[in-house]
Amino acid sequence: MTATAVHAVAEPTICAPLPVLGADVTVPLATGGERTYAALDYAASAPALQRVWDDVAAYAPYYGSVHRGAGHLSQLSTDLFEKSRATVAAFLGCRPGDELLFTRSTTDSLNLLAGALPEGCEVFVFETEHHAALLPWRSSRLTVLDAPRSHEEAVRTLERALAAREPYGPALVCVTGASNVTGEIWPVRELAAAAHAHGARIVLDAAQLAPHRPVSLAELDVDWVAFSGHKLYAPFGSGVLAGRADWLRSAEPYLAGGGASRTVTRAEDGGVEVAWHTGAARHEAGSPNVIGAYAVAAACTALTEAGPEHLAAREEALLERLLTGLAELPGIRVLSLFGAGADRVGVVSFTAEGWHSSHLAAALSAEYGIGVRDGLFCAHPLVRTLLEAERTEPGECGAPQETDGQALSAVRVSFGAGTPEEHVERFLGAVRELLTDGARLDYRTVDGRWVPAV
Amino acid sequence: MTATAVHAVAEPTICAPLPVLGADVTVPLATGGERTYAALDYAASAPALQRVWDDVAAYAPYYGSVHRGAGHLSQLSTDLFEKSRATVAAFLGCRPGDELLFTRSTTDSLNLLAGALPEGCEVFVFETEHHAALLPWRSSRLTVLDAPRSHEEAVRTLERALAAREPYGPALVCVTGASNVTGEIWPVRELAAAAHAHGARIVLDAAQLAPHRPVSLAELDVDWVAFSGHKLYAPFGSGVLAGRADWLRSAEPYLAGGGASRTVTRAEDGGVEVAWHTGAARHEAGSPNVIGAYAVAAACTALTEAGPEHLAAREEALLERLLTGLAELPGIRVLSLFGAGADRVGVVSFTAEGWHSSHLAAALSAEYGIGVRDGLFCAHPLVRTLLEAERTEPGECGAPQETDGQALSAVRVSFGAGTPEEHVERFLGAVRELLTDGARLDYRTVDGRWVPAV
Repeated sequence: MTATAVHAVAEPTICAPLPVLGADVTVPLATGGERTYAALDYAASAPALQRVWDDVAAYAPYYGSVHRGAGHLSQLSTDLFEKSRATVAAFLGCRPGDELLFTRSTTDSLNLLAGALPEGCEVFVFETEHHAALLPWRSSRLTVLDAPRSHEEAVRTLERALAAREPYGPALVCVTGASNVTGEIWPVRELAAAAHAHGARIVLDAAQLAPHRPVSLAELDVDWVAFSGHKLYAPFGSGVLAGRADWLRSAEPYLAGGGASRTVTRAEDGGVEVAWHTGAARHEAGSPNVIGAYAVAAACTALTEAGPEHLAAREEALLERLLTGLAELPGIRVLSLFGAGADRVGVVSFTAEGWHSSHLAAALSAEYGIGVRDGLFCAHPLVRTLLEAERTEPGECGAPQETDGQALSAVRVSFGAGTPEEHVERFLGAVRELLTDGARLDYRTVDGRWVPAV
Repeated sequence: MTATAVHAVAEPTICAPLPVLGADVTVPLATGGERTYAALDYAASAPALQRVWDDVAAYAPYYGSVHRGAGHLSQLSTDLFEKSRATVAAFLGCRPGDELLFTRSTTDSLNLLAGALPEGCEVFVFETEHHAALLPWRSSRLTVLDAPRSHEEAVRTLERALAAREPYGPALVCVTGASNVTGEIWPVRELAAAAHAHGARIVLDAAQLAPHRPVSLAELDVDWVAFSGHKLYAPFGSGVLAGRADWLRSAEPYLAGGGASRTVTRAEDGGVEVAWHTGAARHEAGSPNVIGAYAVAAACTALTEAGPEHLAAREEALLERLLTGLAELPGIRVLSLFGAGADRVGVVSFTAEGWHSSHLAAALSAEYGIGVRDGLFCAHPLVRTLLEAERTEPGECGAPQETDGQALSAVRVSFGAGTPEEHVERFLGAVRELLTDGARLDYRTVDGRWVPAV
């Protein structure tokens, strides 16, 4: 290896944005004219990578029924589906013996796992989780841990809770890799070590982490990982659950139907007897979403080939610019659990003094062609904790409660591999103008959302 | 209306095949050379309509995060998603107050409904159902009815079973619209009337019916209908459950997560309290598959605009040619529950004397470029009943049991709106050649499947 190569590894170059669909799309401004759309809501759903779209488009004419189809395209499609599984497994650093299931989303993956827990399994989650990770454990004994204010407190809090459980039976910890509200990275490896030291298992919600950082089951030593294609530049209806096979194989099939059933016979009592498949098929009843699975695999390949270190360096530079720019603006409060220096991905939520979040978000869209999100981001307890709201009445997604004229909600700006610098600059310039000069248009509320009054 | 117009309605013209993706794809023959692929496995999964693909491709650059995104493309995508729901509801003849849920498939739809049944609800199915309709009722008391041999017997059998139930509580009947094995149409309207007369509700598995015939909840008077996009020329991972809202609204959400949860707060006992959405959102947790839903809606629009009567006339003509052609061949036995004159869609299963089904299917693919399916078609009890197998050992999907050297399985040929006449002619010619002259290649079995030995 040459000195230059070593240098390149130590300080990765900042690559250009990866081509994504919609980069040239213009949207009308309520103030007149058109502008290219600045998609800054990647944390909700990211645009498709051009490469993913091209791969899907190239495959689509060869689409065929998978599994027992005898024709050439059926065999090609079955092969593509299983190769997609292998590609994603490699992307996630799966260990030998791990199972990888194609689901429809992170929500689906975690609901599937929730149905596969052994009898009496306790579940431990921080209140900081997205609802997809907070709520699926309905039929288990659930312990919700208060939001920690440092990585160390997170580990200590978890250890204490796991040690105190009684009976000291099977347990699962579900933890986010990067918060969908603050973008902050969680100490996954340390939490996994804590879980294992206390005889528990751990599932990583990587919905926000996988699009931004490499995720390896083997390196993090987590038992399962879940993520969604639509946040990983592959919005074709597929998600993933990958990890230890044992609980999955002994669980009831997630869905009952064809594909999951190996043999079905009439029983002596007149009913039916089913022998279920083991392996991935057990939990993938129904015709699989082959295009969705292939799209996820194509995204994994594209991100790997682009170089995770280059993408991370690029995102780091955009993030620094964003946070520096926001810090210069009066009345902006960036939400954070772990403090100013915390490691985070390209997801930043904030409030602006004197502005209802929905008003600010509406003005960014109508007057600048910028798409952000406002609300509680399907992480209500976390956002409430962060806003230190004193109202006891809950805000709800459709109509946030007001506290002294200001919404119990925040604005979230999020970006990724397809985001050009211009989007971040436009966003900062727009917020500065709005805070300084106010919105140019009048706005009114419809069903609790602000929209231009024109 | 002129006499000509009346005539046209009475005898619809036969339209050209609808353009589908893959129509020009050639596949290599094991006997040398290439041939355009004849996709005759529509009953498993149909190719995408070109129109569906074009619509998806036109939308893809405008894809954005739905629901609470404040940006222009988020609002456009949310609007598109809800308009897709309305389009599909109109296609299905939904009644005022009906709910339409986007799921991932028919299997998913029926599993969702199975989780929404009221306490103590009994379920009645014929053994003739696809496993997707036969198996989801795991937590209910299930009555499996023997295969009827006529429409009248089907109605009588159901009425008798419903009348005899004790206690005479809530009940659900699940019935297929068109068999995925024989293609035969079931007397849905009559079964619905029987169900309602006996205080039961009925869900129609329209996976095989909707791609071929108009399906109307209102006209058939069924309570729910389920189907899959991938059989309806829209293979993008979405399916549908539509029908009465009451049971759905009072049921636990299908998946727990964001989107389904209206508010989430910490409870006094340290846990979480959830207020769930009512309406469709209740059962659609997680980011929806917007592209998948839009693709289904695009297919509904395309089929409606092409004219269901023209498509049905075209399919009828192909079917007549196929059945006439098969009847001329020695040793071919077409599977049927309701007899030779039964109304059916373009799905035909058969056995060929002296041929293992997998052998015949493999030869059709390797030597003629024709894709069919062989096996038990995820409807094991039905196929076993039809084959009057005397073995008690079940065949399984992966490795059908042999009976006197012949497989306990069948070959299925199925087609639809994109199938040209040439595919049916090529298929008939190929079967004739194979039965007369035998296969040109040698075949061997790998994991129970026949493949060319070359």
